[in-house]
Amino acid sequence: MADLIQPKVLKGFRDFLPQDEILRADLQEKLTRTYRAYGFVPIDTPVLEYTEILLRKSNGETEKQVFRFEDNGGRDVAMRFDLTVPFARYTAEHREELYFPFKRYHIAKVWRGEKPQAGRYREFVQCDFDTVGSDSATADFETLALMKAALKEIGVEKITIHVNHRGIFNRFLEKIGASEKSEDVLRIVDKIAKVGEDEVLKELTEVLGSENSARQITQYIKPKSSWDETLTHIESLAGGESEDTKRMKDIHEMMKASGIEETYVLDPSITRGLDYYTGVVYETFLNDLPSIGSVCSGGRYDNLAGLYMKDKVPGVGASIGLDRLIAGLNELGLINAKGSYLDAEIFNTEESLAIHYQKVAGELRQKDISVEVFPDCIKMNRQYNVTEKKGMKWGIIISKEQSDKNLLTLKNLKTREQFIDLTVDEAALKIKD
Amino acid sequence: MADLIQPKVLKGFRDFLPQDEILRADLQEKLTRTYRAYGFVPIDTPVLEYTEILLRKSNGETEKQVFRFEDNGGRDVAMRFDLTVPFARYTAEHREELYFPFKRYHIAKVWRGEKPQAGRYREFVQCDFDTVGSDSATADFETLALMKAALKEIGVEKITIHVNHRGIFNRFLEKIGASEKSEDVLRIVDKIAKVGEDEVLKELTEVLGSENSARQITQYIKPKSSWDETLTHIESLAGGESEDTKRMKDIHEMMKASGIEETYVLDPSITRGLDYYTGVVYETFLNDLPSIGSVCSGGRYDNLAGLYMKDKVPGVGASIGLDRLIAGLNELGLINAKGSYLDAEIFNTEESLAIHYQKVAGELRQKDISVEVFPDCIKMNRQYNVTEKKGMKWGIIISKEQSDKNLLTLKNLKTREQFIDLTVDEAALKIKD
Repeated sequence: MADLIQPKVLKGFRDFLPQDEILRADLQEKLTRTYRAYGFVPIDTPVLEYTEILLRKSNGETEKQVFRFEDNGGRDVAMRFDLTVPFARYTAEHREELYFPFKRYHIAKVWRGEKPQAGRYREFVQCDFDTVGSDSATADFETLALMKAALKEIGVEKITIHVNHRGIFNRFLEKIGASEKSEDVLRIVDKIAKVGEDEVLKELTEVLGSENSARQITQYIKPKSSWDETLTHIESLAGGESEDTKRMKDIHEMMKASGIEETYVLDPSITRGLDYYTGVVYETFLNDLPSIGSVCSGGRYDNLAGLYMKDKVPGVGASIGLDRLIAGLNELGLINAKGSYLDAEIFNTEESLAIHYQKVAGELRQKDISVEVFPDCIKMNRQYNVTEKKGMKWGIIISKEQSDKNLLTLKNLKTREQFIDLTVDEAALKIKD
Repeated sequence: MADLIQPKVLKGFRDFLPQDEILRADLQEKLTRTYRAYGFVPIDTPVLEYTEILLRKSNGETEKQVFRFEDNGGRDVAMRFDLTVPFARYTAEHREELYFPFKRYHIAKVWRGEKPQAGRYREFVQCDFDTVGSDSATADFETLALMKAALKEIGVEKITIHVNHRGIFNRFLEKIGASEKSEDVLRIVDKIAKVGEDEVLKELTEVLGSENSARQITQYIKPKSSWDETLTHIESLAGGESEDTKRMKDIHEMMKASGIEETYVLDPSITRGLDYYTGVVYETFLNDLPSIGSVCSGGRYDNLAGLYMKDKVPGVGASIGLDRLIAGLNELGLINAKGSYLDAEIFNTEESLAIHYQKVAGELRQKDISVEVFPDCIKMNRQYNVTEKKGMKWGIIISKEQSDKNLLTLKNLKTREQFIDLTVDEAALKIKD
């Protein structure tokens, strides 16, 4: 006999046990339901793409992390490292078959060969939604509203969504003569929550060669006590009213009209670093665990598919990081994992009743009860141990005498309360109750 | 400006447009629901595994088809080509954390570098469910019952599930002295639906060197007019009653007790070719389109994880081929694709009402209506064209005068019937109706 192969997953990859996968499935289903209710439709794209398509625009860091190889046909291919680049390629390839404005969601795995560390995996799920082909406050707002609604649907209500507008910031940088260094500035400002204001001031001073300019920036990025005040503040620093500040006013009015404005703050320090955003940008923090970082981020970009087509397609979107969110929920004790989707287990206590059990199971299934028959007639305590892991509420026990009269005993497995000699109909009613 | 990159998917791979992905999502959700109702729980495993783990047991054909490469850490890795081998590895790796009998489902993508041809893709979805750690008629039967229930849930009721038992067949081959050639025999018999009895007889004669033995086999594999008759027939040819024939009787009794026996035939010609099955095996054909081949197949195996652990884990399972099934449903005209999950569209006819639209949308969402505001205030016929693709039933139009009184016009987009000056509550009631 051949040697055994050690069964193990690759470094940075994960198996999911049933209780963990049930939780992930539950969250994904709730997000999906909310995305759909706001008019987003699903698409799918291949896990593998031509490397040229995935990597053209990327920086060296991404290139190092991507899983890339030559396939059997000699093609240079790679596994997607996000869902945005494939969506850009998809939009260009199918622009004649799609309609615009187009709202899609895509919840799927992506791969990055990052150094494995706490909370970082090489395979993880992104939950993206985007509206492309519209540059409107309506689309910006519905994105922000959906972020809140989706998180609420999964039980995360205590959040703050920090919103900013890159356009206003860029106007401001131009005004103070810092726009040539804007990429550096954005990158440095993006770190403020992590490194603090002093460090940001120091780095900005180095990059700009002027403590005065650096100070102007740290003044700019400090939020005031309300949306309106902050907006007035940055508007005046950026040179007065314009399309971008009008947009931020409209979005805020829409929040108020929908009664959800409490969740949002205008935070001029949000930049989304080096990303390709050009308009609104946002990040979402758990009020009780801000240290975990943003669990839902995104923004507006003015040219999604520019690498693949001439027409400009503006868009706005957001992405929920499922793994980080689950880590946060876990830490906050908000996780209620279940062990199965069953209502009831029919225990297997009489070899000779194997066929009768199936009759009862069939009748219960007719009444929309989720039920299984324990496969083997083994000791009751072993059957109990297994069903305990599955966490269903009800057990069904049938004796030979009961089987003749088509009766059964229903047992509440949590309270141990028993209901003896019920008909299948009576049992079904009690289970549904 | 850099040259444009041609946006295109890899050969043998597919994008899914919204209406196609909505259909796939719908079918997967219905299958999932049914799998869960029968006590199966989800797990997940990585897309990438050590090549050694995936390929040790495979034949050369699989090895040629697998997407295999060296990762940045110098590991020999491969993308999974099915869900069974990863499940075997998973079972061995987590045997201490799992409970047995263990029932899992896994609906996920797999990859094979096959020659692209009609209906064959390099990336496709498998929908597997298995019960491991039990060798019982109950587990066999619940697998068969779930196959029927899952297909029924997606609207496929006219099916026949062909069931056989490899153990009885092996006894028979031993009795006629053909067991040394059993792999060849299974492979040849497996093709009978495709190539016909004459060709099978010819090939069997060649392999066995005896027309007499070949004829005995073609006699054996011919079904009689009922389960019982066929069972009596093959039982006598195989040397009389035994555990295996008793199992087939029990399974049939369970079918009758559940009132679903009409769907199943005992078909001794079903072998599942060279697969690793040792007990019951089955294939499912669409009554109105048998030519498309089996849409759901599987069987019992006696040692799932033998490559990775010493303990034998017997199991039984089945897999639905989603792509083939969709192709079949398409051909039978059973496909009803929708364009979105929306109930209603709020048309954008007044720039100045952008904020008011969000108020109405928020109120409707409070009442569980799935609604979006058309993002841009463009010509009505362009707005109609887009919403038509999304296929929702209701349109909402609000004039300036109506907005002052918080009234709206509700329009049935299919019949063009209009309801003028409704309150939001009245509209919500009508939409839900």
